[in-house]
Amino acid sequence: MYFKINRNFFIEEINKCSRIIDYKILSPILTGVFIEVTTDKISLISTNTVVSIKSEVFLGEHDLVISETGSVLIKAKYFLEILRRMDDEIISVSKVEDNVVSLAGDKSEFVLNVLDDVEYPIIAFREKGSSIMVDTQELKKSLNQTIISVNEYNQKIVLSGLNFSVENETFYVTGTDGYRVSRKKIFLPYSVEEKFEANIPYKSVLEITKILSEKNETKINIQDNFICFKVNNTFIQSTLLEGQFPNVSMVFPTDFNTTIYTENRKIVKLISRADIPSEETTSTVVNLILNGESIFVKSNIQQIGSFEEEFKDFEIRGLDEQNIYFNSKFILESLKSFETKTIEINLIDAKKPIVISSNEDQSLSQIILPMFSN
Amino acid sequence: MYFKINRNFFIEEINKCSRIIDYKILSPILTGVFIEVTTDKISLISTNTVVSIKSEVFLGEHDLVISETGSVLIKAKYFLEILRRMDDEIISVSKVEDNVVSLAGDKSEFVLNVLDDVEYPIIAFREKGSSIMVDTQELKKSLNQTIISVNEYNQKIVLSGLNFSVENETFYVTGTDGYRVSRKKIFLPYSVEEKFEANIPYKSVLEITKILSEKNETKINIQDNFICFKVNNTFIQSTLLEGQFPNVSMVFPTDFNTTIYTENRKIVKLISRADIPSEETTSTVVNLILNGESIFVKSNIQQIGSFEEEFKDFEIRGLDEQNIYFNSKFILESLKSFETKTIEINLIDAKKPIVISSNEDQSLSQIILPMFSN
Repeated sequence: MYFKINRNFFIEEINKCSRIIDYKILSPILTGVFIEVTTDKISLISTNTVVSIKSEVFLGEHDLVISETGSVLIKAKYFLEILRRMDDEIISVSKVEDNVVSLAGDKSEFVLNVLDDVEYPIIAFREKGSSIMVDTQELKKSLNQTIISVNEYNQKIVLSGLNFSVENETFYVTGTDGYRVSRKKIFLPYSVEEKFEANIPYKSVLEITKILSEKNETKINIQDNFICFKVNNTFIQSTLLEGQFPNVSMVFPTDFNTTIYTENRKIVKLISRADIPSEETTSTVVNLILNGESIFVKSNIQQIGSFEEEFKDFEIRGLDEQNIYFNSKFILESLKSFETKTIEINLIDAKKPIVISSNEDQSLSQIILPMFSN
Repeated sequence: MYFKINRNFFIEEINKCSRIIDYKILSPILTGVFIEVTTDKISLISTNTVVSIKSEVFLGEHDLVISETGSVLIKAKYFLEILRRMDDEIISVSKVEDNVVSLAGDKSEFVLNVLDDVEYPIIAFREKGSSIMVDTQELKKSLNQTIISVNEYNQKIVLSGLNFSVENETFYVTGTDGYRVSRKKIFLPYSVEEKFEANIPYKSVLEITKILSEKNETKINIQDNFICFKVNNTFIQSTLLEGQFPNVSMVFPTDFNTTIYTENRKIVKLISRADIPSEETTSTVVNLILNGESIFVKSNIQQIGSFEEEFKDFEIRGLDEQNIYFNSKFILESLKSFETKTIEINLIDAKKPIVISSNEDQSLSQIILPMFSN
């Protein structure tokens, strides 16, 4: 095995693969990044058994020159650290004997031990089955906006991840923990006829989000209980969660008694203040009292103290009296998921779900159950 | 107690005091920041028993208005968090009842529990005794350049901190762990007649360095086994280490067989490469072989691999053959402590101390003992 490649690009690609590695995994070979060199390309592969990544570089791209095919299983952490300390623009990687690799620049040479790659698993990255194409930036944003409602440790396994589903021309991304629902709608420029539904584990969503930093479109494939994302030269694949995701459309209220219109930035700051910092809890019960032209926001944490503020910077449609309690964390995460200037808080009464939406971005809805007053 | 103050300034001052707090300390009152309001100023005080800080604000500075004197012991972490979430330029702090304080802005109010301040210790900040004045930025730089040679856990207590000493017009800052010595000379514009010697604990040096971010001069006072730094409105005081600091001047060699002149940036990068990353050790034994017009740098870590590089980018005075082993961490920290473009590495032979210096900054010397070859 012998190839030359652009050092900075090689660092990026190894880094991409190494991010998903779980160093606490029992099998030592899975702590490596597998590099396979064929006549026309090199592939870098890594897996933590749930998520797997493959990155391909073709001859001529990024100064890649291949002199001899073969494969090697590198200890990515050390390789990365060493590559970063080198100065050369182009470096060479060659196998000098079994499980020993030379990493060389113009004047310096590292001779490094590598892992035994004989038993490295063959990972099939799914490119067939149902597929859709989505703008990469929009997909990334959608995952970030909906993952907030997912509890990674939800006892109901199917809720411990995000749900993808396509109906005709609409791609829905949905997350719920039973107390709140985040739902994003992406319109596709075509109608999808095949069934397309998948529940993606929480941790996989985080890994996928990190990879979706690039431009262009992402191709999403579902096959054999795997979902595979392809963006540019990189494949990232995850196993799926089993189970039937609940039909959350049914919990969406449509008729509201009160809609509060305000600036998102201002209401976020207000609720942040009501979210009294404390050692014991990560959220505070916040009481919102709408009374004519004022909203009074109150909160109290026994050990720390209490908060009260009068807020007048809003407009209203409907009933101007409400008295409702909610979880500060839920409402703050929902509000912050909107990148819009204005926001609407839709209320029915103290016991019905609150819906947060914005006229500026109708693709996103956040629903939160209120808390009962004490 | 009732006063108004500029919110951002108040955040800065509480933050300064809260940084030294040790939350693992047994006494709960020492986890607070003590605020004392007298007719003409407020003082913020904190201590971790080794290091203590006092920051004073006088009437009229930073929008300070005092309506009622008194004192309060705040839980700094929560206070800071809450102050940061407020919007107001000026806020008011008032005692509403025993151990309850109101923190209010224009429209919002926090009513917060505070700690019982009755037993808060009276801390005397030393302003008399032997003293010198030093430029604050130069002092900060000196501490950073010399602390590298100090081992916080040195069994010889006097070596577990930095030594300050003044002889006539020279202020020396010295650190040593027995394997290396860092020494900085600062020339004072006057001669100090009184004895001035102090050994400052490692952790105190770190805290002091953080406070020395401001401009102007720092006044250093030594009295009753305490050292007190005063910079602008802030006092920071530390207890001292007991014991006689060794006379390190004696280990400084003066006659060298070989001096290597090179660019600091280049030699740092070279030694960084030789410092092969590894799980087990934080430093590598590096072998430097000077042979005529080349320096060969070699290193080897059993589990990871080996490194070799030929380096030609230097000039030399004296003997052009040397073969010496050293600890990568020691030499890297020494080289990096110089802010100069060029560097000199002075050698006698494989068993005598290496001295690193620079013509561009003669105030600093770094001495390192070589390692014996295996």
